[in-house]
Amino acid sequence: MKFSIDKTDSQCRARTGSINNDHGKIETPVFMPVGTVGAVKTFSPEELEYFNSQIILGNTYHLFLRPGIEIIHKAGGLHAFTSWQKPILTDSGGFQVFSLAKLNKISDDGVEFQSHIDGSRHLLSPEISMKIQRNLGADIIMAFDECPPGESDLNTLQNAVDRTSNWMRRCVKWLQNNPSLYNYGQTIFPIIQGGVNKSLRKQSIDELLPYAECGIAIGGLAVGEEKRAMMDTIEYCTEFLPSSQPRYLMGVGKPTDIIKAVRRGVDMFDCVMPTRNGRNGHIFTSNGVINIRNQKYKEDFSELDSNSAHKWGKQFSKAYVRHLFNINEVLGIRIASTLNLAYYQNLMLSIRKEINNSTFSDWSQKNLKEMQNMKGM
Amino acid sequence: MKFSIDKTDSQCRARTGSINNDHGKIETPVFMPVGTVGAVKTFSPEELEYFNSQIILGNTYHLFLRPGIEIIHKAGGLHAFTSWQKPILTDSGGFQVFSLAKLNKISDDGVEFQSHIDGSRHLLSPEISMKIQRNLGADIIMAFDECPPGESDLNTLQNAVDRTSNWMRRCVKWLQNNPSLYNYGQTIFPIIQGGVNKSLRKQSIDELLPYAECGIAIGGLAVGEEKRAMMDTIEYCTEFLPSSQPRYLMGVGKPTDIIKAVRRGVDMFDCVMPTRNGRNGHIFTSNGVINIRNQKYKEDFSELDSNSAHKWGKQFSKAYVRHLFNINEVLGIRIASTLNLAYYQNLMLSIRKEINNSTFSDWSQKNLKEMQNMKGM
Repeated sequence: MKFSIDKTDSQCRARTGSINNDHGKIETPVFMPVGTVGAVKTFSPEELEYFNSQIILGNTYHLFLRPGIEIIHKAGGLHAFTSWQKPILTDSGGFQVFSLAKLNKISDDGVEFQSHIDGSRHLLSPEISMKIQRNLGADIIMAFDECPPGESDLNTLQNAVDRTSNWMRRCVKWLQNNPSLYNYGQTIFPIIQGGVNKSLRKQSIDELLPYAECGIAIGGLAVGEEKRAMMDTIEYCTEFLPSSQPRYLMGVGKPTDIIKAVRRGVDMFDCVMPTRNGRNGHIFTSNGVINIRNQKYKEDFSELDSNSAHKWGKQFSKAYVRHLFNINEVLGIRIASTLNLAYYQNLMLSIRKEINNSTFSDWSQKNLKEMQNMKGM
Repeated sequence: MKFSIDKTDSQCRARTGSINNDHGKIETPVFMPVGTVGAVKTFSPEELEYFNSQIILGNTYHLFLRPGIEIIHKAGGLHAFTSWQKPILTDSGGFQVFSLAKLNKISDDGVEFQSHIDGSRHLLSPEISMKIQRNLGADIIMAFDECPPGESDLNTLQNAVDRTSNWMRRCVKWLQNNPSLYNYGQTIFPIIQGGVNKSLRKQSIDELLPYAECGIAIGGLAVGEEKRAMMDTIEYCTEFLPSSQPRYLMGVGKPTDIIKAVRRGVDMFDCVMPTRNGRNGHIFTSNGVINIRNQKYKEDFSELDSNSAHKWGKQFSKAYVRHLFNINEVLGIRIASTLNLAYYQNLMLSIRKEINNSTFSDWSQKNLKEMQNMKGM
């Protein structure tokens, strides 16, 4: 895998670039739709490509539980299993274990947990996470880290940083002894922890940078901390991260968060918002997020979003899509998810275009100002 | 609306033709996907067109309850509301009232019923059904009939025939006094009743034919009677129906039923099977219906249906689609529904082609023989 920078903004840290790997080229800054359990909810692979999605994310925790890595390995890996032929990134499973599963025991060895589906007991460790991710066969695999909640005390944060560094060594060691199972390469991204504490972040960066071959992630944010503290932490981290590697801000976020983080030098994003909000009838439009279930749209025959990058924005009325949600029709969920993903990918397209045109700094400030009064942005 | 016949088979009553109306041309024999509550479940309008769907069906009962005819009228009719611009047929609501709602009182006036959704009380009568269908604005509207169950006694069947004829007169009278609300024509199809009793069928045909302007429906079948009796009744009816009008066999059915009915001179079909079975994981393939939820597909990485008319048949494996159903992923329902609708519309395409090539009689007998040992066909 190789990262090259095309253009860097003169007034902020924003840059465009491209990540080249065995499944294709990824133009950055990039938004990665989340394909939790082997599908980006409601979308077929060709629909994702239509939206200019260049790489999708798979969740190790979910795929480990269902269908299990044995099946995915027999299928020839996650690309073959899902028929998505562009790049894939898998997370380490750590975040879901901490947030979804019932935890039984956390130690330096790893995490004992019970499945949120059937209560079955499992162990996840750096070695096991690597083994699962080797089987899944993602192009980018994530280190197994400890991600404490946003309100954690200093001691908890310190332990998480130390443990994450320790686990990083074990991940790399395991990978060195167990090469890729398929005929293409896999690159591991370390994950920086440390909450919003700068000295811990610095420690984490210093300890993990030696393991960063071609990319590094900022984890432990968007987990309940103040938004300003999150942005300050991003800005602090990117100051010390090598500009020669893409920086991935995990689990972020809202459109304005993405623009702000790009200004601070972030290159990669993932978030469930386009699909999760879509399922709940929350639609990202050019005027902000609307809740299409709202009674006020009952007889509103205006276009869903006349400025949408997707034709369905003009094709369907608010009243019709509200009706579809009202009768629990799958097409309603599809329309909302589609408009949301189109919104996100069109935003990334604009960001890349503006950076390449040397107009990003002004553009982003103007847009952030406009968006600050829009709901849900 | 105008019907013209292109070709009639020399060895059976099968024929190709076309129905021309203000929203387009419908090549017959035609299969109409069912868009119960304003959407053919999971499909966007352009996806339906891609499958060569030429006309879809809407359910008066469901649309009357949700979103209600006031909203659809304000939207400019069902075409405008749903953005489906090709022809639409709406049923009369009678069948759903009898099968879904809690019936309070049936009389010559009409049917008092309670909504299956919220228990609210409503009356459906010939006049009210026509009023609703005027508001929906379908190209083909169906007469309000009484459709008794398959096991009904002679007295019940006789009453249904008499009442259906009486109601037919009231439907036509109401339509004459209340012209179309939109700038295109609507044509009403009478519905022949009489169960599997030939003299009642003859009476119903004789009484309803004077009201058939451009099409007539055979109702009261596929409601629990023997399959052979159903086919005999169809054959009996088409003997007396004018060949100059399309014949619509309501609510039928399985692929073999369709081929057999085409042999007997039927031109139009509708059935919920492609979508309903799809939602349940039952997929129509070139080898018969498979239940993709079955454990035996867990590690079956073979193509879903390599002979499918849709590319997804080759693109996705049985194991992957089984996994999608296992995690309740919408994409699974979409894939199954898509393959099913592709199967049905491809069947109709073959039927029309074979009739036009004067090879339908042999083709249909060969296919019926092959399909008789296939599950679910």
